[in-house]
Amino acid sequence: MIGPIRAVTAGARLLHDTLEAEKQAVDWRPPLERLDPDPEVDRANQEAVSRLLAARPRWVGMGTALDTMPGMRADLLLHSGPPLRWEAASGPMRGALEGALRLESRESADLDPCHHHDAVGPMAGVISPSMPVVVVEDQASGRRAYSNLNEGLGRVLRYGANDDQVLERLRWMAGVLAPDLKRALDQGPIDLGTINQKAVQMGDELHNRHRAATSLLFRELALRGLGSESLRFIDGNDYFYLNLVMAAAKAACEAAAGVPRSTLVVTMARNGTEFGIRVSGDPGRWFTAPAAVPVGLFLGSYTQADANPDIGDSAITETYGLGGFAMAAAPAITRVVGGTWETARNATLEMYEITLEENPNHQIPALDFRGSPTGIDVRRVVETGIQPWINTGIAHRQAGVGQVGAGLVRAPLEPFRDAHRHYHHAHVG
Amino acid sequence: MIGPIRAVTAGARLLHDTLEAEKQAVDWRPPLERLDPDPEVDRANQEAVSRLLAARPRWVGMGTALDTMPGMRADLLLHSGPPLRWEAASGPMRGALEGALRLESRESADLDPCHHHDAVGPMAGVISPSMPVVVVEDQASGRRAYSNLNEGLGRVLRYGANDDQVLERLRWMAGVLAPDLKRALDQGPIDLGTINQKAVQMGDELHNRHRAATSLLFRELALRGLGSESLRFIDGNDYFYLNLVMAAAKAACEAAAGVPRSTLVVTMARNGTEFGIRVSGDPGRWFTAPAAVPVGLFLGSYTQADANPDIGDSAITETYGLGGFAMAAAPAITRVVGGTWETARNATLEMYEITLEENPNHQIPALDFRGSPTGIDVRRVVETGIQPWINTGIAHRQAGVGQVGAGLVRAPLEPFRDAHRHYHHAHVG
Repeated sequence: MIGPIRAVTAGARLLHDTLEAEKQAVDWRPPLERLDPDPEVDRANQEAVSRLLAARPRWVGMGTALDTMPGMRADLLLHSGPPLRWEAASGPMRGALEGALRLESRESADLDPCHHHDAVGPMAGVISPSMPVVVVEDQASGRRAYSNLNEGLGRVLRYGANDDQVLERLRWMAGVLAPDLKRALDQGPIDLGTINQKAVQMGDELHNRHRAATSLLFRELALRGLGSESLRFIDGNDYFYLNLVMAAAKAACEAAAGVPRSTLVVTMARNGTEFGIRVSGDPGRWFTAPAAVPVGLFLGSYTQADANPDIGDSAITETYGLGGFAMAAAPAITRVVGGTWETARNATLEMYEITLEENPNHQIPALDFRGSPTGIDVRRVVETGIQPWINTGIAHRQAGVGQVGAGLVRAPLEPFRDAHRHYHHAHVG
Repeated sequence: MIGPIRAVTAGARLLHDTLEAEKQAVDWRPPLERLDPDPEVDRANQEAVSRLLAARPRWVGMGTALDTMPGMRADLLLHSGPPLRWEAASGPMRGALEGALRLESRESADLDPCHHHDAVGPMAGVISPSMPVVVVEDQASGRRAYSNLNEGLGRVLRYGANDDQVLERLRWMAGVLAPDLKRALDQGPIDLGTINQKAVQMGDELHNRHRAATSLLFRELALRGLGSESLRFIDGNDYFYLNLVMAAAKAACEAAAGVPRSTLVVTMARNGTEFGIRVSGDPGRWFTAPAAVPVGLFLGSYTQADANPDIGDSAITETYGLGGFAMAAAPAITRVVGGTWETARNATLEMYEITLEENPNHQIPALDFRGSPTGIDVRRVVETGIQPWINTGIAHRQAGVGQVGAGLVRAPLEPFRDAHRHYHHAHVG
């Protein structure tokens, strides 16, 4: 949980209006763009999505970003979302990047998306060379993915806070927590697929609710004799599992990337300025649009006006059929992101319209164990006009403040339309 | 979870038929017995149920039954449910009692219900003098309640198994686990109320599903440095929390007992032969009827024909608004006890008809955080003819076999009608 959440009247009314508008939107849809059937694309999508469902992610190791991640350099900072120039960075992204420079004792650095290094990071998603990273491997494909460690809630780097306390915590994580975790993992990989499976049956949607998954992971780590200081840190942060499920989702999605002609979405990510997707058939290319501002519930006296545009690689969980797509598994998430049980359930039901499969690994008990809607098809999004749901934390728009709330946001349609046009022209003419 | 459950066709069909019959039963109800309003009873019930809702159960200590429990004697065995003679004991109860005699190296012993010693025990519920017991205290009332420690699944004493391996495990629990737990509790009480609260939002109904609660308890015990052998034992048994929530519910219910004129039910319990209730206004008296046979899903090749009549004090969880009353919080429980999300949800909705309050401590996310239906009123059961739902493990009817399944059962109406007649005659004439 995010601690005491007070819904500010303005924010709550805005949320209510948005949900009402959503309800009406069910009656009115943009005219469908009828796409001609294409059996070749269908076959490619079946191949791609089958790899997504076959994924068996395991946490196999720890390392520092510089030594462990492909293409990492000492003069490079990684960030969330599609490619970004320093000048275009939003407040929280600038705060996180500046904090990372101080952590590395550097004046400047080049920027690269995490996604260009098989990595994902929540919110600002900044990974710097000396940071410890988790190594997650999809046992089925052998694909590896990386993420940093979750710092907890409140004033943390990923929300753009960068004071001494933030940097001190990051140094403790590198010096104490990461070596502890490495020792625990030396005893063998930890099966994240099984934890995901169980957690979805325990009220986690695994984007903004991780209490069950963090508890199950805690059990495993305690049995491996993790140090008491590290155990206490994880116990104090029910979001600890977030970065692990993100790396698990990234490994699964990369396993599905690179199938020629496939219109399966393998990345949705936001850098606080732009939202972007990558598609299986041409994964080297980003399709982007301006990031929307999430609507939700706000902490303390913050309001909607404080909210930064959507930010973070954590939409990789939705890309993998979790988070906003698995809301029906996590009715308690409405206390964090807003809405009711009905809106949560309807969010999941709607996502079946734009996905290729139901993932038997992520069964939703309140839908009588139907698998979560998994594998977004660009064509279905374009045909139906249904925008993917993402549930997300909300950062303050100014650097250094941190988290101000959590809420729901729809992915913009343009990148899906652009991707469709690109594919269509490339293959049909 | 109960391990691999295969629904035998016969059992599944019987369950389906029962659920269909339930559906039709909604249309047809026994003619309502219209009771005259009685403001004095209403006031008494408000007092009694307010104590139930005010309860703040905490695990405060460990001890042996003989040294710790009120009225315990060296020549006494406690059992679940209403009073029972040796000759009337069903197979699993006999198996458990005989095992306990061997554990205590005795030829014979007197029998007493756990409930006569402020205690509760799941299934056979046998507590013998040397067994370790948990001490749970309701912080609001100061009432204490006791239970034994959960042995795990499979061949265990509470299901009537009593071979050497069963007794050896019990000795290990007394010799290693209990002292470990005592050391952990010496650091201070563990707040069970908060664990219950969180677990109900994590898919536990806290009668047959305890994965979340056991995980949260595990976190607490690991932070207190519980021994690794004990941690491993608890990690291997997601039912470990059952006995603790039962003692918590018992402490809360005893706090509500003894309010003159109150028709609040403070105990529902079964001894494998009879089902019985105790009522707040006259808690020294049992009202009983023959125990029904639960219908459910069966393990391996077992079928409905193997099922013993309903057994165990664990219906104290339903008496406290959990278990069958909180099914809507735990859709995944249908994989253990049968039914669908709709039947689970409807079970909870129906129980609001016979209860006095909605417990704000046990909020059900999928009912938009409505409190679980809590505080069964004898008068409402008699007026509506609605029988309380209990979800329960199913023991083999022969001694020594153990658990064969889990399922749902309705409490018989007769004890409620008897209690009503008794009250009515005593106070109205």
